[in-house]
Amino acid sequence: MIVISTVYDLKKYVIDKRIKGATIGLFPTMGYLHEGHISLINRSVEENDVTIMSIFVNPTQFGPNEDFDKYPRDFANDCKLAENAEVDVVFAPNVTEMYPNNYNTYVDVQNITQFLCGARREGHFKGVATVVCKLFNICMPHRAYFCQKDYQQVQVVKRMVLDLNMNLDIVVCPTIRESDGLAMSSRNVYLSSDERAQAVVLSQSLMVAQKLVDAGERSAKVLAMKVEQEIKKATLANIEYAEIVDCELLNRIESVDTKALLALAVKFGNTRLIDNSILEV
Amino acid sequence: MIVISTVYDLKKYVIDKRIKGATIGLFPTMGYLHEGHISLINRSVEENDVTIMSIFVNPTQFGPNEDFDKYPRDFANDCKLAENAEVDVVFAPNVTEMYPNNYNTYVDVQNITQFLCGARREGHFKGVATVVCKLFNICMPHRAYFCQKDYQQVQVVKRMVLDLNMNLDIVVCPTIRESDGLAMSSRNVYLSSDERAQAVVLSQSLMVAQKLVDAGERSAKVLAMKVEQEIKKATLANIEYAEIVDCELLNRIESVDTKALLALAVKFGNTRLIDNSILEV
Repeated sequence: MIVISTVYDLKKYVIDKRIKGATIGLFPTMGYLHEGHISLINRSVEENDVTIMSIFVNPTQFGPNEDFDKYPRDFANDCKLAENAEVDVVFAPNVTEMYPNNYNTYVDVQNITQFLCGARREGHFKGVATVVCKLFNICMPHRAYFCQKDYQQVQVVKRMVLDLNMNLDIVVCPTIRESDGLAMSSRNVYLSSDERAQAVVLSQSLMVAQKLVDAGERSAKVLAMKVEQEIKKATLANIEYAEIVDCELLNRIESVDTKALLALAVKFGNTRLIDNSILEV
Repeated sequence: MIVISTVYDLKKYVIDKRIKGATIGLFPTMGYLHEGHISLINRSVEENDVTIMSIFVNPTQFGPNEDFDKYPRDFANDCKLAENAEVDVVFAPNVTEMYPNNYNTYVDVQNITQFLCGARREGHFKGVATVVCKLFNICMPHRAYFCQKDYQQVQVVKRMVLDLNMNLDIVVCPTIRESDGLAMSSRNVYLSSDERAQAVVLSQSLMVAQKLVDAGERSAKVLAMKVEQEIKKATLANIEYAEIVDCELLNRIESVDTKALLALAVKFGNTRLIDNSILEV
């Protein structure tokens, strides 16, 4: 495995591989790898000749009061895990390499970014779309790997790829969970042991909702209310949103007819967790 | 020469050429070709194995009160001229092909779009950057050709390519002029014969400014004033702007130290003409 830190060197590497006919998988990350990441690496290694994993904590997707500075980082351990998982290249640019002086261009996906996390994290998805667009142009992958846990992010990236006629496939991988159901996330490390114990309510409430749908409940309002009731059993939980929306456009719906997205954002202290599931009738 | 109207077919064509090792030149146009266009085609044909010329009157770069509907179009004649000039492919998508239902993604280049035309044509450069980004992803060119006449557009495209790490070179070609100096433009066809006769003041005033610089004048304010005086000799001319700005950042400057951009936008009736030159000390 090699580590590359400049755009110039990464492009040189990729162009050489492409000339030789190799297929390239890209897995964009912010580092601090856990088993969820490893499952996406495995998928890319299986499907491509070359797997590039980027590690870049992207400042433009963090708001001024968010956790950019304290976002967990462990580059040495990430490289060890990546190498064990057969990543070929870790691309780890610094902020100046990605956003040099007089940087001025942003990719803005409208409409679907008004809802859910987009409504609460101003500019977040503009930062995401911009850095992902850059990584696609730098790494020129045939396939890029994203996790279903970041459902809205996946929709934003898919919309961008479609709208801007980009030349790659987006592969969406399932959320990987701890044994009690908590979705794996680098941010779980922020949780106190009490918070960690209670955080299981996110995945539990998703299951409660599906059971209600199975029992015949169709009202989005009723389902969202029951989900909130379930989450509130955790005394340390502060609900930011618990919404049932259209799977594609992400706008609110009245009733679950065939399927719908149930998306959650819940804070425990300063730690913001998200989770989601597709409710199916 | 072949004409392709879908993104799918164009990509298929390009991928085949790229696999065979061909270099690709792209010349994006809004059609209604004149000799200025032909000079850019010639340059691309000279420098690349394959030349693709796109013809697309892009609605997202026109304001609500601008001339999208009446922009001159002559597809049959454009194809004839393109074929004579040895274009390999005319890419002519319709609006729905480029902006299908639920289209939602825009590329926004900030700062340099606040000045000159960007200050007067709201959303214009967002429309330009977006469609050019799409055309680059569809046509995958090694080089793309733009004309110096649209100086601010060139700067916006260069900024986007640099910022988003796009994989191509931007080639800037000189403005081609009628024998009396008027910069060639598809919009010249709108001019009445009186307006056409007077429109020569744009290029004349550019020459006046350079002569003043040659004679020692350095004040941007004085130079702009003299240019405006020159333009006002044309009784049908309405000046939108006549500004002396930094060549890269396009913001106003006080004095011409080494070089500067002199940019003009002048209306004759409803017809808006632009021109520019680099003033050199």
